[in-house]
Amino acid sequence: MTDMTPNIPEVVAEVRARFEAYEAALEVKDVDVLDATFWESPHTIRYALHENGYGFDQIHAHRVARPQGPGIKEERRRLEILTLGRDWAVVNLEFKVRGRELIGRQSQTWARFPDLGWKVVAAHVSTVSETAFW
Amino acid sequence: MTDMTPNIPEVVAEVRARFEAYEAALEVKDVDVLDATFWESPHTIRYALHENGYGFDQIHAHRVARPQGPGIKEERRRLEILTLGRDWAVVNLEFKVRGRELIGRQSQTWARFPDLGWKVVAAHVSTVSETAFW
Repeated sequence: MTDMTPNIPEVVAEVRARFEAYEAALEVKDVDVLDATFWESPHTIRYALHENGYGFDQIHAHRVARPQGPGIKEERRRLEILTLGRDWAVVNLEFKVRGRELIGRQSQTWARFPDLGWKVVAAHVSTVSETAFW
Repeated sequence: MTDMTPNIPEVVAEVRARFEAYEAALEVKDVDVLDATFWESPHTIRYALHENGYGFDQIHAHRVARPQGPGIKEERRRLEILTLGRDWAVVNLEFKVRGRELIGRQSQTWARFPDLGWKVVAAHVSTVSETAFW
């Protein structure tokens, strides 16, 4: 039976370390680290602020195209890491957008592959909607 | 060793059925089905268009507060379901927003719990940013 134990401390620590390495790489646009964080698969998806990346190759192209410079995150408001068992995690970060009165959200689904270690298989970054829909 | 086989057809079919039931429930605001789709846990997170829901109770409150009426999805542009092994899935839907020239994105991470079956443990809905950040 699959182990679904939430938040085994050493598993959370593993994922947190990988997440923080990714965040640091975003700030300096270290494309090698950004690429190594994501699963190299046509199934990997990254919905970013301005584009929808389907598959590792598109995601990589979006990394390369992004200008260098400080990232969009001015301040963290809430970081939540949930691990279930030893091979699955979701990371959710709420942040204040740099220089704007906007709240951003970043979500990642991580899987630990036997041969590859922890990889992001899906990610989604957005701001709270600027349009009222209802 | 954890089975990470992608897209075993019967697993994809299970997740697809649960996803479509959820989508139908959104259109008619069937709160019971919406609630039953999400993991009843303080760890569950749902980043929606206008709010960030932390924990099942907040997510439920957001459901109840939402006005009835047609949902925000006018047309599906791309639906991607990825399952890994028999207990994990991510669902990503890109859609056109009803009545606006905006693209929406919906992401869900699903886990199959031994005692509960398939549940969404994290979700994120947004539109492509209306502000150019770089």
